[in-house]
Amino acid sequence: MKKNSIDNKKSSKSSAHNIPFPVLNTVYQDPHTYPEGVAYLDSQYVPISQAKISVLDWGFLHSDATYDVLHTWRGRIFRPELHLNRFFNGMEKLRMSIDYSREDILEIISNAVALSGFQDSYIELICTRGCSPKPSRDPRDAINRFIVFVVPFSSVANARQLVEGLHIAISDRTRISPRSVDPSIKNYHWLDLVGGLYDAYDSKAETALLLDDRGNIAEGPGFNVFIIKDGKLATPNYSVLLGITRQTVMDICLEKGLSCDARAINKLELLAADEVFITSTAGGVMPVTTINHKAVNNGEVGMITKCIKEMYWEKHFLDDWSIPITYHSPST
Amino acid sequence: MKKNSIDNKKSSKSSAHNIPFPVLNTVYQDPHTYPEGVAYLDSQYVPISQAKISVLDWGFLHSDATYDVLHTWRGRIFRPELHLNRFFNGMEKLRMSIDYSREDILEIISNAVALSGFQDSYIELICTRGCSPKPSRDPRDAINRFIVFVVPFSSVANARQLVEGLHIAISDRTRISPRSVDPSIKNYHWLDLVGGLYDAYDSKAETALLLDDRGNIAEGPGFNVFIIKDGKLATPNYSVLLGITRQTVMDICLEKGLSCDARAINKLELLAADEVFITSTAGGVMPVTTINHKAVNNGEVGMITKCIKEMYWEKHFLDDWSIPITYHSPST
Repeated sequence: MKKNSIDNKKSSKSSAHNIPFPVLNTVYQDPHTYPEGVAYLDSQYVPISQAKISVLDWGFLHSDATYDVLHTWRGRIFRPELHLNRFFNGMEKLRMSIDYSREDILEIISNAVALSGFQDSYIELICTRGCSPKPSRDPRDAINRFIVFVVPFSSVANARQLVEGLHIAISDRTRISPRSVDPSIKNYHWLDLVGGLYDAYDSKAETALLLDDRGNIAEGPGFNVFIIKDGKLATPNYSVLLGITRQTVMDICLEKGLSCDARAINKLELLAADEVFITSTAGGVMPVTTINHKAVNNGEVGMITKCIKEMYWEKHFLDDWSIPITYHSPST
Repeated sequence: MKKNSIDNKKSSKSSAHNIPFPVLNTVYQDPHTYPEGVAYLDSQYVPISQAKISVLDWGFLHSDATYDVLHTWRGRIFRPELHLNRFFNGMEKLRMSIDYSREDILEIISNAVALSGFQDSYIELICTRGCSPKPSRDPRDAINRFIVFVVPFSSVANARQLVEGLHIAISDRTRISPRSVDPSIKNYHWLDLVGGLYDAYDSKAETALLLDDRGNIAEGPGFNVFIIKDGKLATPNYSVLLGITRQTVMDICLEKGLSCDARAINKLELLAADEVFITSTAGGVMPVTTINHKAVNNGEVGMITKCIKEMYWEKHFLDDWSIPITYHSPST
C-alpha cells in the first residue's frame, strides 16, 4: 500500500495537464481497507469503512474526547448501565453534551449490533468535542459529536495467551498523572501506554504495565491489573481507569466472599504475587504468568484466576448482568 | 444542527420500511460545514471538507500521532526546515515512518497552499499510527498515514488581544509530565490544556498557563511563554514544546544582543515580571497584560515585547527566514 502511495504521488505530478501543479479533486477516494463492522454517526447507520471524522475535529486534533467500550457475548450485551454511567460522567466532566439519552444510546447500540450480525462484538461509544462552525479556537464554540462503532470482539490477549498467560514487562514510563488528566474520564491519551508497549516488545515481552506518579503500579494499555497473595486479591486504585471488568471482578469477589482491596501496589509486591491477572472489556479476565522474564506461580495460570475467569464468563448469560440483542431478519 | 440531528434520528426510525430496525446506508452523508481550505492525503489534494480519517485510526483512538504547524505570511512560508526537522524527529521517536522526504513534504505544502490561494495560512502536517490491515492491537502492524491540511491563518490571540494583551490565568492543573509523554514530540494530548482553558474561562480570563510536575511554569494551550525582568528574557525549558516561534525569539535575542535564558521560572517570578508574552506559530509574539487579574506592566504592552513582535514579523520577508510560495494561475 505504501508502494502504491509513492507511485500515485509521482504520477499525479506528471498527469496535471502540463502544468507543474496538481489538480484539486472534489472527492477523496479512500484506498484503505477496513474490517467488517457497523457505525452510527449523524443519525446514519453505515459500514465502518464509511465512519470517519474530519481532521479538524478537536476530538482528533486535541484528543478532546471521551469514549467507552462495551461488548456483546453470544448475542448479549454485558452490563450496559455501568458503561453508560461512565460515559455520561466523562462527558459531563469534559463539559460535553449530546442529544441522546441513555435509552437512545442503548437502542442505537442494539441496532448497530443487530445490523452487524455479530454475536461477539466490541462496541465503542465516542463523544468528541467536534468542530466550531465559525473560525474559533474556543472549545465552547464546538458542536460535540457522538459516534458508535461495532467491530468483531477482540482481546488484549490472543488465544494462546488466554490459556498460557501473558508475559508482561514493567515499564519505566509513568502513566499520565491524575493531576493532568482525570483517569475516571476514559480518554485517548495513550502515547505513554504505546511507548510502554514498544519498550515491552523490545524486551521480548507481550505487553506493559506502567507506574503511577508515586512509583506504584498503575495500569497497562487497555487493562487493569490484579494480584493475588495468600488468597487475597488487590488492584491499584490510583491513576487507573475504573474499569467495568475490574468492577465485575470486585463484585464477583464480594459475592463469593473473597477479599479484594483497591489500594496501592508496589513493584515488589507485584513481583512477589502468587497469581496475577489483567482485566479488560477486550478479553475479560486474562492471566499473567511472566513479569519481567520472571515466572509468576511457576509459569502456571493460578486456581483463583481460573475460577474468576470462569465466573466472569458465566455472568454473561444471566439476566441481571446482560441483555439479549434482538437480531432482526430482513424478511420480517 | 443539534435539533436537526434529533429530528433525523426520530424520522429514520419510522421510515424503515415497516420494520422496527433502521436501514444500513452504504454511504455516509456528512451534514456538517467546514471552513475553506485544502488537504493532502493518500496522494490526493482535496477540499478540507473531504479530509477525514477513519474512526479506527490509532491516531484518533490512541492519540497515537505527531504533527507540526507551519504558516505562510504574505505568501511566504516561515522557517520550514525547523518545522520539518521537528516533525521527522517526532515520527522517529514514535517509530513511525512515511514514504515522503523533506523535499516531498515541502513540495506538497507549497502545492496545497497554492491550491488554497491563501497568502496567510495555517498549515498542519500530521503523521498518525494508522490502522492495521489485519485484526491486531499491535501498533507495529499499522500502516502510518501522512496528512497535510491548509486553512486560513489563525491566532491564539484575537485582533484586540494582539493590541491590548491577553488576560491569562495560571491553572492548578499540571501539564502532562515528560516522564509520561516526551514534549519534544509535538502531540495531541491536550485534555490538561483544554481543562485549563475551561478553568480560565470560569475565572473570566482568556487563556491558561499550566505548571510542570515540579510546580514551575510550563506552557499554555498551543503556546510557550516568555518573561522579561530588568531587560532580560527567560522562557521555561522543561515540560514544554520546543516551539519554533520560541526558537525564533531566542534567535532574535541573540542577534540583537538581548539576554534570553531557557530555565525554570516559578509562579512568583512570572507574577513579578516587567513584561510577559506568549509565542505560537498561531499568532507569533502575543503580549500578556493581565495574569490572574493582576496587571503586568500596569496593563500596558511593554517596549521590549513590541520590539520583538515587530522583529518577528520583519523576518517573514527575508530570504534566510522564509521561502515564497509559487501560486499558479490555471491559465498558465
